[in-house]
Amino acid sequence: MSEARRREANAETLRRLNAADPVLVDVRPAGEVVPGLEPGTVLTSGAPLPWREYRGGQRNSLIYGAVYEGLAADEAEAAAGFESGRIRIGACHDHGCVGSVAGIYTASMPVFVVENRAFGNRGFCNFYEGESRRRLNYGVYDDEVRDALDFLRDVAGPVIGDAVRASGGIALKPMISRALHMGDECHSRNTAATLLFGRALAPHLLDLQSRHGERVKEMLAFLQQSDYFFLRLSMAAAKSTADGAHGVEGSSVMTAMTINCNDFSIRVGGLGDEWFRGPPAQADVKLFEGFTDDDVEWIGGESHITETVGLGGFAQAAAFPLQAYQGGSPEVMIENNLAMYDITVGENSDYRIPYFGYRGTPTGVDVFRVAETGTLPVIDAGLAGRNGVGQIGAGTLRAPLLCFQAARDAYRERYGL
Amino acid sequence: MSEARRREANAETLRRLNAADPVLVDVRPAGEVVPGLEPGTVLTSGAPLPWREYRGGQRNSLIYGAVYEGLAADEAEAAAGFESGRIRIGACHDHGCVGSVAGIYTASMPVFVVENRAFGNRGFCNFYEGESRRRLNYGVYDDEVRDALDFLRDVAGPVIGDAVRASGGIALKPMISRALHMGDECHSRNTAATLLFGRALAPHLLDLQSRHGERVKEMLAFLQQSDYFFLRLSMAAAKSTADGAHGVEGSSVMTAMTINCNDFSIRVGGLGDEWFRGPPAQADVKLFEGFTDDDVEWIGGESHITETVGLGGFAQAAAFPLQAYQGGSPEVMIENNLAMYDITVGENSDYRIPYFGYRGTPTGVDVFRVAETGTLPVIDAGLAGRNGVGQIGAGTLRAPLLCFQAARDAYRERYGL
Repeated sequence: MSEARRREANAETLRRLNAADPVLVDVRPAGEVVPGLEPGTVLTSGAPLPWREYRGGQRNSLIYGAVYEGLAADEAEAAAGFESGRIRIGACHDHGCVGSVAGIYTASMPVFVVENRAFGNRGFCNFYEGESRRRLNYGVYDDEVRDALDFLRDVAGPVIGDAVRASGGIALKPMISRALHMGDECHSRNTAATLLFGRALAPHLLDLQSRHGERVKEMLAFLQQSDYFFLRLSMAAAKSTADGAHGVEGSSVMTAMTINCNDFSIRVGGLGDEWFRGPPAQADVKLFEGFTDDDVEWIGGESHITETVGLGGFAQAAAFPLQAYQGGSPEVMIENNLAMYDITVGENSDYRIPYFGYRGTPTGVDVFRVAETGTLPVIDAGLAGRNGVGQIGAGTLRAPLLCFQAARDAYRERYGL
Repeated sequence: MSEARRREANAETLRRLNAADPVLVDVRPAGEVVPGLEPGTVLTSGAPLPWREYRGGQRNSLIYGAVYEGLAADEAEAAAGFESGRIRIGACHDHGCVGSVAGIYTASMPVFVVENRAFGNRGFCNFYEGESRRRLNYGVYDDEVRDALDFLRDVAGPVIGDAVRASGGIALKPMISRALHMGDECHSRNTAATLLFGRALAPHLLDLQSRHGERVKEMLAFLQQSDYFFLRLSMAAAKSTADGAHGVEGSSVMTAMTINCNDFSIRVGGLGDEWFRGPPAQADVKLFEGFTDDDVEWIGGESHITETVGLGGFAQAAAFPLQAYQGGSPEVMIENNLAMYDITVGENSDYRIPYFGYRGTPTGVDVFRVAETGTLPVIDAGLAGRNGVGQIGAGTLRAPLLCFQAARDAYRERYGL
């Protein structure tokens, strides 16, 4: 493999990232549509680990997921079920899914079905649980959390599903492109995208009143309180985009990042499904009142699939309002964003930043460039607290250098470059 | 009047601008709610002129308004009616209204009724006509324009009116504040604000289906195609805000700007209802394909009531996407916006700019500072073309220095300072 061939492969990866056409085509219970998600399986974020290595909030989340799904009567029975293999664990990414924080999927949960119409592959994501800091994906489970999940299964999923099917499919790329002109970067800020999605649903909701009655108003009320609702659509769009660009022989472009309770890992377009693991990310955080850095716990996370396709931290200069949520200043956000052009293979053809004169976002991280420059991908992220307190803040993460060095070494070994 | 007393009066004007609480409380035919708008009256933008001095597109617009309202059978009869005084002309500002471009109001047109709950006064604005470049407010009248106006009267007005009344009132300040964090400056860009307004209406629209049937979907379809819909709400909110701050003895803060076919004029808080007139604004324009600077015609305009209260050009750095519509660059928009702090008496307490670290927008133009520094208020604006071609572009205007010098001289004469 020559340097020129690597460049060609990377250009092809970028072409596929840019050509992607993610369209929301359906909402269904995960068990009906997610490949390989059996009723007795719980999915979670991160490169897969043996059961015994899941600890703290992520271990709890898996147990809570099993209890919520009725796979175990209580937490002890769930733990025993995982231990014996009666309840199976899957890694979200291996099933076309991406998990937000702990990223728990069970068969009954509704998921967005996003089809990448340019390449025919699908990406999935389950639903935002609402504005409470206490959510299953942040490692919390109680009556409030269970009721919220039931609402998604019984009201939000069916109503939105009918609206989406009636629409004939909702193209997500134009929505994301537009949201970038309205203060979103579609990872940690999704306010405009959520409004645009609500607008696309609205005419269908009027039609659905006769079938769903009060459930339409309940769903609408939920959507109107949920400024982060669109994140799960952004994630599913990004997953289907990144998967559509994965597998180009000779590509050194990163196609996924993932976090579990133990490590941060990346995947590379030309290196198959191997995860290149490193230590946890460095975090620069803004915490809610009453919490300190010591309260932060890594319990998983895959929402940075958005950064993988040129959104999130790679579009910070489109989203100055983020400073109120995750800290930082406009100056630092601009600097962060500009630095990403040094480690990417090109610019996005659809996702553009008004402040940069509509320059396309930096897209397609080349693991060689990261390893050479030491410039680390910047990621916008929500942060979970220890001991089941839920979300305790937000901030920016830096992917660890070791992952990129390991990926580069593997690339050299495989391709002899 | 001492310099200290003038500063106090200006501070009180700013306090009132900031304390304003504009709430959309109703939608009604103008003839039912606008003070002094008799069935035989047509309102138009600008400081009032004798009939014979209205020329070009503004003259035509008055005639078209009279024909639309059925005050005359045809254009010749309308012109004769104005000439004889049978059809009367009013200046929008004198009736609590503000006009977009030509700003034609007739009695049957629906208007937003916005109440400034902090001071009890009301502001009105009629409706956005839609995305066509051919609109009555841009000096055009044909079957398409008439149908659009009929739609507003028969569908949009009644449906939105019922929704607003059911809501108990929709507070506009929080909506405008939020839109400034989403790429709007609420004069030439209203995309986010329109979405936020649509979101506020949505639950009520579900309830109105049984009463209004298909009209609800028709109204929704119109709203979804109209990214500028909110402008008229922004204008009514700004008018009620500015009027609530007008009339402070000793204030040298500008409380209105207006344009007619002949001149640009301003009003000042401590100088009663007198208009201080100057030549037309300087314009820096971006025109639609096929038009040149020579095609621009002044046919009226009062939407810069938004700049008067700290929006529009005074919030350009909140709305970098505007560069695509009206030209300029982010750098120039930042520079323009920062310059406005030099001629204003303070900062807005609610309207804030993320790029400036959430600094309040420059608010309350002091005519003394403009006259002394020569820094002219910057205004975002749509531009009309000659010969009834409709909108031909957009750009930034600069209010003429002469108005501010004339106002300062009048202030000195009245207050001896």
